[in-house]
Amino acid sequence: MKKNAFYAQSGGVTSVINASASAVILEAKKSSKIGKVYAGKNGILGALREELIDTSKESKAFIESLKFRPGGVFGSCRYKLKSIEENLKEYERLIEVFKAHNIGYFFYNGGNDSADTALKISQISNKLGYPLQCIAIPKTVDNDLAVTDSCPGFGSVAKYVVTSTIEAALDVESMHESSTKVFILEVMGRHAGWITGASCLAQDSHPGAPHIILLPEVTFNQKKFLNKVKETVQKQGFCVIVASEGIKNSKGKFIAESDSKDAFGHSQLGGVAPRLSDLINTKLNLKNHWAVADYLQRSASHLSSGIDRAHAYEVGKKAVQFALQGLNGVMPIIKRKSSLPYKWEVVAAPLTKIANVEKKLPAGFISKDGMGMTKKARGYFQPLIEGKLPEIKNTQYKAGKMEMVTKKLHAWR
Amino acid sequence: MKKNAFYAQSGGVTSVINASASAVILEAKKSSKIGKVYAGKNGILGALREELIDTSKESKAFIESLKFRPGGVFGSCRYKLKSIEENLKEYERLIEVFKAHNIGYFFYNGGNDSADTALKISQISNKLGYPLQCIAIPKTVDNDLAVTDSCPGFGSVAKYVVTSTIEAALDVESMHESSTKVFILEVMGRHAGWITGASCLAQDSHPGAPHIILLPEVTFNQKKFLNKVKETVQKQGFCVIVASEGIKNSKGKFIAESDSKDAFGHSQLGGVAPRLSDLINTKLNLKNHWAVADYLQRSASHLSSGIDRAHAYEVGKKAVQFALQGLNGVMPIIKRKSSLPYKWEVVAAPLTKIANVEKKLPAGFISKDGMGMTKKARGYFQPLIEGKLPEIKNTQYKAGKMEMVTKKLHAWR
Repeated sequence: MKKNAFYAQSGGVTSVINASASAVILEAKKSSKIGKVYAGKNGILGALREELIDTSKESKAFIESLKFRPGGVFGSCRYKLKSIEENLKEYERLIEVFKAHNIGYFFYNGGNDSADTALKISQISNKLGYPLQCIAIPKTVDNDLAVTDSCPGFGSVAKYVVTSTIEAALDVESMHESSTKVFILEVMGRHAGWITGASCLAQDSHPGAPHIILLPEVTFNQKKFLNKVKETVQKQGFCVIVASEGIKNSKGKFIAESDSKDAFGHSQLGGVAPRLSDLINTKLNLKNHWAVADYLQRSASHLSSGIDRAHAYEVGKKAVQFALQGLNGVMPIIKRKSSLPYKWEVVAAPLTKIANVEKKLPAGFISKDGMGMTKKARGYFQPLIEGKLPEIKNTQYKAGKMEMVTKKLHAWR
Repeated sequence: MKKNAFYAQSGGVTSVINASASAVILEAKKSSKIGKVYAGKNGILGALREELIDTSKESKAFIESLKFRPGGVFGSCRYKLKSIEENLKEYERLIEVFKAHNIGYFFYNGGNDSADTALKISQISNKLGYPLQCIAIPKTVDNDLAVTDSCPGFGSVAKYVVTSTIEAALDVESMHESSTKVFILEVMGRHAGWITGASCLAQDSHPGAPHIILLPEVTFNQKKFLNKVKETVQKQGFCVIVASEGIKNSKGKFIAESDSKDAFGHSQLGGVAPRLSDLINTKLNLKNHWAVADYLQRSASHLSSGIDRAHAYEVGKKAVQFALQGLNGVMPIIKRKSSLPYKWEVVAAPLTKIANVEKKLPAGFISKDGMGMTKKARGYFQPLIEGKLPEIKNTQYKAGKMEMVTKKLHAWR
């Protein structure tokens, strides 16, 4: 008997998460076992509120175009379900909605929190006597999921950071004689330094930047940092720094949240780059510029990595195939078969090994002085930023129809 | 008799200034009147210090590759020559260097300061009995040169800002239900709002951002601004703001330099975006994110506008042609013949009309409430971001040979 599928996006979006959505919808269409694909409006909140988008109402061209569309087209959310003990009602509500709409497949596109949610839902659905195939689809720019070699979303942000570092470094190189000597680029990755670390690939291009890489895995040492800035400016004439938003001092406090207050007594807002800039001004008196890429880095579809997009598409496709094969409580993950040439495949991994686990940069990736990366790291990162750039004729996007399925239940809450 | 040419880059670089350099070198090569093209190492400082790069030693492939290379490949500088009355010696030194190296053509690639310098040098060279063809080649991301319809460098930064605004807006749209409600992008243009204003083109794409555009030409009104943010979030669910680094309060003070101090009593560093973010936190308590693009926007060759690159190349080529025609004290400028379809040509304009003049956004480009742009503005901006993206296979760049011409004179200073 045909069952419908539910697909939801979770947490911070990436420039390729919609490629996974596109794959789920197109692959499900091929199967006679799956009826419609309903997308949660604003992620799992859409299921709780019974706000289901009927993706079958969208044109094929629109679904195809999702491969190249940034953001989360159906809406994502930051909403973590509590444990079953704490809030059984939430889980019961989900099952009630799934039952009301004949949903037999649950695809949850997110990070390790979402893997945990998918796992819990697969467990509770069995207990409540409403069997559901639960598949988590990996997505995170942070690249911090366990078991998988890399995470869809990461390769593209890495490519953005590498490209931007090279371009800005050429700019600074040309101005340093009489103007800016130091440039700081702040990038994402609060707890793991994957994004920051990937910037090492920019060193293959002239002028060999970044000279300093500041990782959240390495305690920020102000003295060592300032010495290296000074030395680099003396030797090269200029210095380019890529810093993670999550670097911490020896007390374990985020640099971006350290002591300085504004005139009103408010703690200054985040921003590692302006702090480092202030430090360089005060202690070294070197003219510097800084950039904070923020959402630009994770939404830059125009610069997304072809390999990353292929990963994102393939995990979506395989998620449907695994569900049809009867798998449950798994995630399609990327297995690297070789780096040079880059070969990979997508296989199923149990969610129990992925849920709530955070993978940091391996020690072997970080150089001795803690401010650079090793050859091993470069070998890991390089293939992930490769592949064809998207063929976007112009960067204009259209709205979808976003037609809602008629509600059958009482309102939630 | 053959004369050599001197080419120098001046001021802040752009993602297409090297396209102009490429054009000058390749066009000069075609002429039997021009010997070698020497490039100033670090701009005009290279002439003063007699540090001349012999561009004839570079491979043709390298010179061709400059069309797509960000930064200023020969080095630029922030160095303004004083008036002839104040520092005649500097001008005499330049003429001395030009004489020593048989330089008969002076190409100065910069903004309105550089136009002024080129004009002065053309005047003094006549007085000192060493005739020189002085041609200024337009370049500035700020788009603030008089007479020319647009400035090479501007279209590319405009394209970067439009693309980034669209992409970030799709990101925020997908997260706003349970997370970020307001996103602020800070862009360049301290005195003129061309870059900021161009972001209006992003409104043609879903989701119609930016909702608020803050221009340096319009006094920042905190109350009106906060009201519009609040209203937009109420109506749309989220609000995207593009702000110029140069917005000022009613006392004429830069917002980025306003009163707040850090714990050490230092004035906080620039950054309009973090200030606006702080304001939105404090007064509206809305979760927000901000990005400061800084050098990324003006070095993003990977996203440069095809039309802009064509402009940059053509003004370089015409500069050489004008010099060979015997013109002096002129700038090749872009004349728009029609907007739809976009047609343009490059003609000569006297430097006297360009030197030291700053062109601001026309009042007719700014919407009634001062926080948006008019249809007329859109008609102006649209063609400038069009054209083919560069064909960059990978974004790695090589070093040039940068072989220096043997010095003939005593050291400068």
